[in-house]
This record gives sequence, structure tokens and C-alpha cells, in this order.
Amino acid sequence: MRLALAQIDPTVGAIDDNLSLILSQIERAKRSQCDLVVFPELAVCGYSPLDLLWRRGFVEKMQQAQEAIRLASAGIGVIVGGIEAQHHRDGGNLADPSSVSDGAGTDLLNCALFFSDRSLVASIPKLNLPTFDVYSERRYFTPGPGAQVLDFRGKSIGINVCEDLWVDDGPTDAQASLGADWIINISASPFFVGKGEVRRHLASRRARENGITLFYVNLVGGQDDVIFDGGSFVTSPNGDLLYQAPSFVEGLFIVDSDQTKPTPPPAQDAIRAARKAIVLGISDYLRKNGFSRVIVGISGGIDSALVAALAVEALGSDAVSGVFLPSQISSQESSDDAHALARNIGIDLIDVPISKIVSASHSALQEEITGLASENLQARVRGTLLMALANQRNALILTTGNKSEIAVGYNTLYGDTVGALAPIADLYKTQVWEMARSMNGLILQRIIDKAPTAELRVDQKDEDDLPPYDVLDSILKELIEKNMSRDDLIAHGFPEAIVNDVLSRYYRSEYKRRQLPPTLKVSPKAFGIGRRIPITHRYRS
Amino acid sequence: MRLALAQIDPTVGAIDDNLSLILSQIERAKRSQCDLVVFPELAVCGYSPLDLLWRRGFVEKMQQAQEAIRLASAGIGVIVGGIEAQHHRDGGNLADPSSVSDGAGTDLLNCALFFSDRSLVASIPKLNLPTFDVYSERRYFTPGPGAQVLDFRGKSIGINVCEDLWVDDGPTDAQASLGADWIINISASPFFVGKGEVRRHLASRRARENGITLFYVNLVGGQDDVIFDGGSFVTSPNGDLLYQAPSFVEGLFIVDSDQTKPTPPPAQDAIRAARKAIVLGISDYLRKNGFSRVIVGISGGIDSALVAALAVEALGSDAVSGVFLPSQISSQESSDDAHALARNIGIDLIDVPISKIVSASHSALQEEITGLASENLQARVRGTLLMALANQRNALILTTGNKSEIAVGYNTLYGDTVGALAPIADLYKTQVWEMARSMNGLILQRIIDKAPTAELRVDQKDEDDLPPYDVLDSILKELIEKNMSRDDLIAHGFPEAIVNDVLSRYYRSEYKRRQLPPTLKVSPKAFGIGRRIPITHRYRS
Repeated sequence: MRLALAQIDPTVGAIDDNLSLILSQIERAKRSQCDLVVFPELAVCGYSPLDLLWRRGFVEKMQQAQEAIRLASAGIGVIVGGIEAQHHRDGGNLADPSSVSDGAGTDLLNCALFFSDRSLVASIPKLNLPTFDVYSERRYFTPGPGAQVLDFRGKSIGINVCEDLWVDDGPTDAQASLGADWIINISASPFFVGKGEVRRHLASRRARENGITLFYVNLVGGQDDVIFDGGSFVTSPNGDLLYQAPSFVEGLFIVDSDQTKPTPPPAQDAIRAARKAIVLGISDYLRKNGFSRVIVGISGGIDSALVAALAVEALGSDAVSGVFLPSQISSQESSDDAHALARNIGIDLIDVPISKIVSASHSALQEEITGLASENLQARVRGTLLMALANQRNALILTTGNKSEIAVGYNTLYGDTVGALAPIADLYKTQVWEMARSMNGLILQRIIDKAPTAELRVDQKDEDDLPPYDVLDSILKELIEKNMSRDDLIAHGFPEAIVNDVLSRYYRSEYKRRQLPPTLKVSPKAFGIGRRIPITHRYRS
Repeated sequence: MRLALAQIDPTVGAIDDNLSLILSQIERAKRSQCDLVVFPELAVCGYSPLDLLWRRGFVEKMQQAQEAIRLASAGIGVIVGGIEAQHHRDGGNLADPSSVSDGAGTDLLNCALFFSDRSLVASIPKLNLPTFDVYSERRYFTPGPGAQVLDFRGKSIGINVCEDLWVDDGPTDAQASLGADWIINISASPFFVGKGEVRRHLASRRARENGITLFYVNLVGGQDDVIFDGGSFVTSPNGDLLYQAPSFVEGLFIVDSDQTKPTPPPAQDAIRAARKAIVLGISDYLRKNGFSRVIVGISGGIDSALVAALAVEALGSDAVSGVFLPSQISSQESSDDAHALARNIGIDLIDVPISKIVSASHSALQEEITGLASENLQARVRGTLLMALANQRNALILTTGNKSEIAVGYNTLYGDTVGALAPIADLYKTQVWEMARSMNGLILQRIIDKAPTAELRVDQKDEDDLPPYDVLDSILKELIEKNMSRDDLIAHGFPEAIVNDVLSRYYRSEYKRRQLPPTLKVSPKAFGIGRRIPITHRYRS
């Protein structure tokens, strides 16, 4: 059999456009003599529509698109992620109007729809609905009933959806017990560094344990905080990788099920993968929101240099403008580095000095503004000027903050946090350096080598205020990604005084994180929709 | 029997402080010869700790507090909301590190713990875990097994938790079938206008249908976006209200179960209730986050006047400072009204003119900034100056935006949206007027009467840009709170051109709502944590 893995990049809510994309891929698969074409989870509406699912008419519109896909399935099998709605008037919490507007009275099932020869062969609902990290599927969906297996052109096939592959003793095992030769899993699985390897390892285990061939079809594309990396693949019953589609690109990838020769897994390069993810996250955010230009505040430091270079990679140098906003504190070195960087990556850079505006602000205020308040004022004047340019030019600002500074609140809300998207907000400072070094000389060595500074007071250096970044980042990783407590961190060998300082900064800066733009997720736990910490709380351990 | 309804206001994560509060109420109940003292849902940790539940050590710390409560239950029954943890290593999605850090491997149960005479009589887990609007309990908790009934001092009691009361054919009915005389429901039920009536109506129905006496104990206090209104009550088996505790205040309310004389339900006053909720939301946000002072940008218009007046009600006039930030466009009338308002509510007001800063900003930029970009620039200069004062004085800014303008994006991100808390962001403009009129003359009639203006260009009036507010608000209510589609709205009789304009503004301003501070919820559907719409999407119906 010939299978087409349709690794597509739909746009959330653009149901008509997504339908056109799906129909064109079905036609391509037919022209390539495929027996079966497989699309990712929720391909019809994009992942995730979140509360749009509750807009009256949204699901009906999806169902119309699903009907058009059925009609296009003449002579071919089509598996596509869609929705089934079951209306009822019992159950739920109908006394509460917020529950009613949130869809009570209708059960939605997240389904793999299997069409063939203009018939709906089966609608296979997802059984395991992830509701952790960036997932909130129990908010929207009802779990389906048990596993099933279907016959198609001589093969016994178990179809399941994303998380159903991940759960031990779950649908995959059940379908194999029912006699499935193949498991086809349709996913919308977000990227983090190393996720591809985790997926292949899991698939290999499931395939071996059950003696099945596994076809894994993943979504690709950026959606606010989240980047789907594609990388669809096929695993043999002995656990070997038989086919590996590329990551971070759309495509219709055709595999012959008779092929049995293993292919080596792709080389692992964490920083390269994160870079490709961020580049896709930027370009899809711009494209899907109807923008084509970005502005980056270039300070002469490494964070803004990296963001600008990534933006150039995503959008081309003509689409990126830099703004250098010197104060009286800014050094000649910063100016030189900002301009050298701009030349190096081929972007336009203008100077907008802020001193007079900062002075005028101090004069207008009837009290002395000192210390941190005065430092923040400079950063906010910069934010205001960047936004004026962005509004005037119909451009978006890319926010330059990294995960380390966001974690400890070493940033200015409405200052350097302004922007539409924060591309490196899930990279620790040590990863920022690593990625900058990997950019083939685009980022000048002197920018990489110099000590980081916010340049908001004379002779300020980050590491005068904060622990050394290698220590800070090690603590932050355990704290954020593994939820290590204060006691755990100290027992782990981190100095107690530093742990206390980091925890104190971390907890008291939650209010700034609440107001950030979307932050592109490249780690298992990013700031953004996958992490929900109250602002008001007094837990400090 | 004498029951104490312990309507308390714990702080999320302040487990030691919450324990002290609980122990002191147990002692008070003992001194008052009570048989039983009942605390709200999750009283030990506050509602909701969200992802703090996954911090290593958090649940253990709760369990230590729960053990201390057990020891304090000598001679009295204590029902308190806490957590039970069941560790296991199977199930879950253990291959995914984000699932593991999000608590996989441990089932948490949201429980009513029943202690008496230093024993744990029962731990009754919640069966129905709301995962809509502001609730995300399926993210954290596992539903408990079936209903049970306990005997205590001659009464057969069914204890259940919050949502378990709301579900038809749920635990309440099951416990009644098992012979319960009483149902005791412990809740953390957030306020919206009319919610008290909804609760009493529901309780009356459950009590009548099952022939039981119902004791309803609710949390009180503000927690970021959400305000718990208390208003605990008792309903007789024939559905009459037997006891009604006050709303929006802490207290230990003692009821005698022999009492059978009905009490009339409290008078309904939507605007008065919303006002009390907002006042509690402000004061708890300040107190729990360790702040005592706020700053409000006073424009001379109604929104900022109302926010300032509410802040004075919450914190006292000495804790509130006003700042009037005139531009060249600002009218003398605005200045007069701002100063008259400040005098009327007894707050300090300073003038900080922005013209020179705006001019300096235009000069520094090397291109002409015009139209909306120029209007936004003025608003952002104001935001920057307010933040400088707030940082210098260790005060928080209260954001003055209302629900109507936030819904259509008639505001400036990083301009009038800056602040720590947005107290009236869930009041439509028509409700702002209504509340202002109810403030006993605190808000001058001329402020209430004049046409709203952003004063960012000459002779600007809101209703030159937007539909009339009565029409706009009617559309927005159906759109936001009932999820009416474009077709629904037109079929409902709203003019098509206006519907299209409102929907277009609504959909394209999502990015601004993502970066708002917490917005105090007073409606069934507020902007904030109870509403999750992607920024990137192209659904327009």
C-alpha cells in the first residue's frame, strides 16, 4: 500500500482555507496513486482553537468541511483530525450560565475521521485527553469509548489520536490485541528540544511490544506560544525507523508499506532544532496574523542580536528593522556593536536617542525618581518609542527577553517586555550564547564575549545583581522544569544564599510574566499558556 | 446541633497562615459550644493554587497542616477542604517530561476532610471537577469514587464539594438516597452578578427534591481575577432559606439545626453587589500581595473617576493618589473635573503635563508619527509616567479600562492598559455609568453626563468611532457571555454593519487582552483566566 503522510500547517479557525489545503493534498495523494492519505489531529480547525470551539456555529462549520472531505474521498482512504458533536440536555452544570456558554449540553469528541469512497468508515474518538502543560483538552472534549480496529485494503488498522499512543496499556495496546497490523496515530504534538527522540523511542517500544507497524503523522507550524515540529515517521514491528519526514516543513510524504529497510534516525542537535523551531514560530506568527514586518530594539547586547538574526532567518533582512535607543549611559561600544551587528545581518538600523525624553519625563514629574524606578523609566521610554514606530509602520515588535531574566524579573514591564511575540523567552541565557555561537558568524564575537549589561545605570553588569548565569540557569532549570523545591535545590548542592535569592526573585516577578506576549516554547516547561501560577500567593518554597 | 459556618478568606499558598486561621476558628467554635465547624473547599491552601500544586513539597505541606487540624478536633467535628494524594507509578504519560513535572505519577483528590475527636472520620473526594470558565480542576485532580453518608451525633450526613451540588443526578441525590438527613456542601464558588440567587435557587431545588437540610459554606475573598463572595446559607427540606450569612466578609456564623423559621432572601441589587465584589477584589489584591497604596490616572472621565472612588472605598482615601496627565488636547473641563473629583473623594491629585515629553518623543523619532500611532504615543507616555511614580512610591497602578473598550480594543496597550489590577474591566460602559450613579454623589454629575472621550485628538468622542454604548454593550453581552455568532447577532436584530464592525474590532484586539493585568470578574464570562482565545486565528463568525 502507498500511504501519504500529509504533514500540514493549518491556521486555527481558518476552516475554509484549511479545507482547501486538505483537499489539495488529497488530490496530490490520488495523483501519486496512494491508497491512504493521513492528516494530523484537528487538521480541520487547527490546534488549538481553545474557547473558539464554544463559538456558536464553529463546530457546524467544521462539520461542513468534514462533509466536503468525505465527498473528496472517492478512490482513496482519508484519515483526518476533526470533531464529532453529541448534543444532549442532561448532565453538565446547567444552572450556571458560565458553564452553559462554555458548551455544556454538547459533548465534543476529538476524532480521527476515516473516509473512503465517499463514506465515513469510522469516527475514532480520542480516549486520553491531555490536560497538563499547554494542553487543556478536558476543558473541551469528552473521552471516547473503547478501542476499535478496521479493515482497509487487506490490512487491519488501529487508528488513534495523539495522547492515545503515549499512555501505557492504552488504545495502542488494545488495538494490537484486537489484531491490528498497523497503528496510525494522528497528532498535534508540540516541539521541545529532544521531543523527536522521545517520540521515536516511545513509538519503537510500542511497535516492538505489539508487533505492529506504526505510522505517526504530526502537525507542523507555529501557533502563538507553541510550535508543532512535524517530523512524521514510520516504525517497523521490530522497532526500527522505516521512514522519517523532515521537521519544521509542510509536505505530503509518501511511503510504501512494503518497504522494510531501516533508515537511521536524524542527527540530534538541540540548538539547531530550537533555532529552526523559533524561526518557524516567528514566520508563522507573522503570516497567520497578516503582518510582514518586525522591529527589534538593538542594544548592542547578545539577546537583541540573536532575536534580530533569527528574525532575518525567518522573514528576510528587508522585513526586519533595528532601532538603537541610546541614553547618556549607553557606551560607544554598544553603539558600535549595534551598528556592526545590523550591517552583518543586513538590516536597517536607526538611532533614536532617549536622553531628552528621559529628562523631560523627570522634569514633568513633581518628585524625584531614583534607583530602580529611574532605570525602569529609561526602559519604558524605549518601549514607547519602539511601539510608535511599530504602529506607524504596521510592524510587530519582537521582544528580546530570555528565560533567565524573565524567571528572575530582571526586566522592565512595559519596557523591554513590549512586543507581539517573545522568540527567545524560553532560552536560558547560556542557551542564548550557545545559539549565537552557532549562527555562523552572523553575531559578532565581541557581542558574544562581552559581559551582559542592562545599561540602565553606569557600569552596571548583570552578574553584579544576579548569580553567575551558569549557576542561575542550572537552578532555574530544576526549579521550572522539574518543580524542585527550595529544600531539593539546596540538597542538590546549590548554595543556600543563591537559592533563596533566586526563589525570592522568581516568586515576586510573576506579575510581569502574566503580561508578557506569547513566548515560543522550546523546553518542556515554558512561560506562557503551559504554566499557570497565580500572581497572588504566598508560597515561597 | 450547633454548626459553625466558617466563611474564611485564606491566602493561596500561605499554608501556615491559613492553618492558624483555621485553628483559631475551631477554638472559637468550641468556645461557642458548636458540635461541628465547617470550612470551605481547599481552605488549607486557598483556591486556586493552580500549578503551585505541582511544586514538590506543596501537598506534603498541606498534609502537615491537615494533621494539625486533626489534632485540634478534640470534642468537635471539623469539616475542611484539603487534599489527598495517592502515589502510583503506572498510568499517565510518563514518557513526556512536561507531563511528569506536571504531577503525573500522583493522583490528587480535592477532598472534604472530616475530623472528629482527633480522628479522620472520612475523606470525601470531589466527584465532579469543573473544567470550564475559570476552573481547571481536571488539570490537577482525579475524580473520587461514589457517594457516601456518615453518622455524626445522631444525624446522617452527606458531605460533598462545590460542583458536586450542581450536577443533576449527582452526589447530592445519591447521598439523599443513601439516607442523608443533611447535605453539607463546601465550596469555592466565585462571584458574578446574580450568582447568590442562582445558588439559593439550586439549593432550594436539591433540598426539596431530596427532603434534606442543606448547609452551604462558601469561601470569601479576592484571588487575582476571581472574587469569592461567601454568602453561606442553610436551606430547609421544603426549600426555604433558614439562614443567610452576609456576603463579602469573613466570619464564623453559628446556626442551630433545630431552627425552622424561614428567613427572607437578601434583596437583589446587581450594581451594589458588583461594587462590593470589586472593593473586596481590590483590597485583598493589595493586602495579599503586600502593598498598601495605589495610583490612578485621573482623566476627568467616568472610568477613572469610578476606579478612584472604588479604590477609596477599598483602601481609604489616604492610600489612593491621583495623577492628571494633561496634553495639549486636554480640555480645561477635564482638568476641572479631575480636580473636583479628587476633592470629592478626598484624594491627593498631582498634575503631570505630558506635552513636552510627547514633543521630545516626536523629535527623537526620525519619521513622522501620525494618526493612531500618535494617539497611542500620548497614552504610552502617560503609562510610563504613572509607572515611574508607582515604582518610586512602592504603589500599584489600578487600570481604568472597562469591558466595552477592552472588547473592541478601544485602548492603548502599554498606555491606559498599564497596571497591576483592572477593577472595572468586567463592567460594560453602561454598567460603569450605573455604578457611578449609585455612588451617593461621590462622582460628580457632570462627569456622569458628559460624552466619553479618549482625548487623544481634538474633539474626539468615543461614539464617533464606536457604535452608541447601549447598542455596543447589548451586542457584546450576547457575543461574550452567550457566544452568539455573527448570524445569531444579526438574526437577533442588531444592524448588520454594526455587528460586522464590532466583531472585526473584537477579533483583532485579542493580542491586547492577552497582556492585560488581572481583571476582576463580576459577570459569567470575564476577560482573564476564564476565557482562552488564541491570538493567532482567523475565525471571524
